[in-house]
Amino acid sequence: MPPARGDHSARRRDVSAAVWRVLAERGFGALTLRAVAAEMGASTGLLTHYFPNKQALLRTALEVLDEVSAGRPRRTPPAEGLATVRTMLLDVLPLDADATARNRIWVGSWDVALADPELAAEHAERYRASRARLAEHVATAQRRGELPADRPAADLAAAAQSFALGLVVQALFAPEEFPPERQVRLLDDWLIALAVDRAPTDG
Amino acid sequence: MPPARGDHSARRRDVSAAVWRVLAERGFGALTLRAVAAEMGASTGLLTHYFPNKQALLRTALEVLDEVSAGRPRRTPPAEGLATVRTMLLDVLPLDADATARNRIWVGSWDVALADPELAAEHAERYRASRARLAEHVATAQRRGELPADRPAADLAAAAQSFALGLVVQALFAPEEFPPERQVRLLDDWLIALAVDRAPTDG
Repeated sequence: MPPARGDHSARRRDVSAAVWRVLAERGFGALTLRAVAAEMGASTGLLTHYFPNKQALLRTALEVLDEVSAGRPRRTPPAEGLATVRTMLLDVLPLDADATARNRIWVGSWDVALADPELAAEHAERYRASRARLAEHVATAQRRGELPADRPAADLAAAAQSFALGLVVQALFAPEEFPPERQVRLLDDWLIALAVDRAPTDG
Repeated sequence: MPPARGDHSARRRDVSAAVWRVLAERGFGALTLRAVAAEMGASTGLLTHYFPNKQALLRTALEVLDEVSAGRPRRTPPAEGLATVRTMLLDVLPLDADATARNRIWVGSWDVALADPELAAEHAERYRASRARLAEHVATAQRRGELPADRPAADLAAAAQSFALGLVVQALFAPEEFPPERQVRLLDDWLIALAVDRAPTDG
């Protein structure tokens, strides 16, 4: 007989997929054991084995979100520096249906994450790591003269992440006002503005 | 005898205050009739009179958020144009405890709003109106030569709103990394970058 481990992994994948479907359709506000069980055609009792409490269910949901995000297809960075910064930000934006679904869940996760100190710390770490990756490429862009060197790379990375996250929120609520081509234009205009050397003030 | 209306208004204020406290402490994920009733020391039965279903509770929560936001103390716009754009964005950022609590609830509201087409449309309209107000002042700034006129005012307003909303999210998760003075610096650096005329591209 094959070991039970295979069954366990398969079951875990089923659970993850069901969690994902509940989140994509109805958000974290609708994420309950009952909803996940219904989505799987399983009993709520079975699921209490996996999720002894609500926090365990939420943590799994955030892990699934992490896994799906980490495994998403990404644009190949065309080069180092500014072009890579641009590519990383394009990979965040809801430019197609999959990216929109993923973003809808990320945005939805902020409510539950902010309500729980542990989950909030984990989310904070995710965003900190993402800013640090951006800052590396910003620093390269500064060394290459593609971005002005008079601002800390960490500040430019934080600004870039802010811009992208806020654009995600706007686009999720008003997809008709923010079609993919407008999102890309807004990003590119912002990068162009950033890249221009600041004129000396004559204060 | 005074009409019951006075009682009704007072009760409504109590309900609103209780909804606000639940949201500020535990977010939309914890917003239930039971939680609001407990916060008021009232019975769940009483509250079903106000909230026949979950959507009614959520709608009231979003209305309370709107009212509190509309009634918040605002910085006096120091002038027209770019200075007003800056002031409007400063009024959004979590620069003090009240603004942080308000933003935490706004960010939390996105999950439930995105899950319900009617609530999503209402939220979309709130952000659209806010972009339109920003765009007016951006257009004034363009006429005054404070911002380059080669980009649509609507684009600059959308970019500004994106930047501010994303900065809110970052600051809520990492308040130590984003103290008020850094938020203001990031905003000012962004406005400076925006204000610089773009160098003509040389093909």
